[in-house]
Amino acid sequence: MVFNLNMFLVGTGPSDPELLTIKALKVIQSADLLLYDILVSNDVLNMVGPDAKLLGYNSRTQLLLSFAEAGATVVRLKGGDPLVFGRGGEEMDFLQQQGIEVKVVPGITAASRIAAELGIPLTHRGVANSVRFLTDHSQKGGTDPLFVAENAADPDSTLVVYMELATLHSLASKLMCHGLPPDTPAAAIE
Amino acid sequence: MVFNLNMFLVGTGPSDPELLTIKALKVIQSADLLLYDILVSNDVLNMVGPDAKLLGYNSRTQLLLSFAEAGATVVRLKGGDPLVFGRGGEEMDFLQQQGIEVKVVPGITAASRIAAELGIPLTHRGVANSVRFLTDHSQKGGTDPLFVAENAADPDSTLVVYMELATLHSLASKLMCHGLPPDTPAAAIE
Repeated sequence: MVFNLNMFLVGTGPSDPELLTIKALKVIQSADLLLYDILVSNDVLNMVGPDAKLLGYNSRTQLLLSFAEAGATVVRLKGGDPLVFGRGGEEMDFLQQQGIEVKVVPGITAASRIAAELGIPLTHRGVANSVRFLTDHSQKGGTDPLFVAENAADPDSTLVVYMELATLHSLASKLMCHGLPPDTPAAAIE
Repeated sequence: MVFNLNMFLVGTGPSDPELLTIKALKVIQSADLLLYDILVSNDVLNMVGPDAKLLGYNSRTQLLLSFAEAGATVVRLKGGDPLVFGRGGEEMDFLQQQGIEVKVVPGITAASRIAAELGIPLTHRGVANSVRFLTDHSQKGGTDPLFVAENAADPDSTLVVYMELATLHSLASKLMCHGLPPDTPAAAIE
């Protein structure tokens, strides 16, 4: 079965609605149905056209299908960038298995927004020639959510961890255990 | 000496002008003077207001100063995100040393655009729990531009290398030497 609908997965960036791309704004304003979750700000939702249906959505991708209307433009809003810790890949996989082709509109990921806001370069000649984004969620379902930090203690790279602040202390300890100098500059942003 | 001007460092994203953020567009259209280089597309330059001065610019940050006019809004355009391989940090440092405060507007980095265009998630549960961006430029000025790849051969992480295609073959060899399986999925985009 192939659905006849225009399906978009749209990154809405961080909470500042001006950090939407022009493309994201156009797609949002053309939507018949929008699905969103808690990471999408109210300011973004206020930009939706008056005739569009809006549906709160808690990671249950299956719900999308029940709204597949012929020829409709359906927009799935994701905070940040859908393909950076947004589980956008899983949603794409699911929809494609149902015969729904998905177009993706990228968004500003939180790391870029924070870097710009605070004036902290993510790469900087002579200091960091790469940048790495990771979460504290174990991909392997292991008991230690911080196992990823073992490979991430690289003094020549900027490390951005998308995580809950509660993990901060054990993360810092682990990174120092694995070789990061205690005087490595760091910032925690909530 | 403190200059009285509104100085912005604005990421214009990849070549698609619709991937400008709304904020970037507003700042560009409010500019009295814009400085740009080769990575900024003509489509973006066409959005500049009719009264603004436009100046091509080849990484010579000092030139900015000669255009510092009292109260003017000066916008430095950078392709992609200014703080990801854009040398934005160096420009910020220089300007701040001159007493010029800089506001930064983030942009969509090439990795996010390509991921969205091709439908390749940068992180994906069970496959890659982190993503790393690097260049093939040595931060230490060593003779081997690929030294960074030695730490980057991590099968649990997506690796995005911003580089010239000519480096592809030696990069692939180096990553395999350091433990990446030969059947690791890969894409080269020009």
